[in-house]
Amino acid sequence: MPYEFLINNLPKTKKAIGTDKGLAKIGDGIINLSYSIAKSIYLTKKSNSNQIIRTGQKVSKKILANALKNANMKEFAKNRADAHDLANTVEALVAYVWLVNKISIEELISLITTHLSGNITRRFDEIENATSAFTKVLISIKPFLPTK
Amino acid sequence: MPYEFLINNLPKTKKAIGTDKGLAKIGDGIINLSYSIAKSIYLTKKSNSNQIIRTGQKVSKKILANALKNANMKEFAKNRADAHDLANTVEALVAYVWLVNKISIEELISLITTHLSGNITRRFDEIENATSAFTKVLISIKPFLPTK
Repeated sequence: MPYEFLINNLPKTKKAIGTDKGLAKIGDGIINLSYSIAKSIYLTKKSNSNQIIRTGQKVSKKILANALKNANMKEFAKNRADAHDLANTVEALVAYVWLVNKISIEELISLITTHLSGNITRRFDEIENATSAFTKVLISIKPFLPTK
Repeated sequence: MPYEFLINNLPKTKKAIGTDKGLAKIGDGIINLSYSIAKSIYLTKKSNSNQIIRTGQKVSKKILANALKNANMKEFAKNRADAHDLANTVEALVAYVWLVNKISIEELISLITTHLSGNITRRFDEIENATSAFTKVLISIKPFLPTK
């Protein structure tokens, strides 16, 4: 990304990246856009009647917080983080790998779509299945994150 | 985009594209992400103290609605559209050109950044300057939109 200068002043440590509020705001946009397209693709491909579904979806904080826990990546979050903090950490990590050009929006969409499964039209099932997909996304991007 | 199939069932007319609710939801994500990065770049480059600013920003409906009017592109919106409808139309048009691969997120960020000017740290000025930037974005993408 030509925007990598936007993180020049960030120490390349787990906590500095995982707790940066500006990164979280940027990541919020990346995640919501990617999930919107992934959900549209997934629902369209699964449709029995070949119906095309275009949708937008804000990913709930609960989904992201649980994904961070399931991926065993809570060390990127601040100490005594609540669900909101944990979700912000996921957003910050995604923004970081995007800004350092290790993942594109298209790749993120593809990752989420690949890892979505089951029914996502009922809210309860969607939370479970989307959490699982985001857990796998986090595990996929972990190699591009700082190790200390 | 490999997601162009998501608009296969859409008539390629001004009104069909400009009033599609699913496209508007997708475009909402594209616009908010692009504006977040553009605003971060703009504020960072303008900073006297070489401060790096990372921010996220939901673009207000008012900005988008006025941009559509200023670009003389109200014919893409539904009849008797209110500000909310006009903003949705801008979002749908941006999603359309992105899905048909005529503009990338990076190009959109570059367009917005180029056309931002003046002070955008005060809310009042930001609305005026962002409206002007989005007006120019709309004029730039118009050649890729249906003509009838």
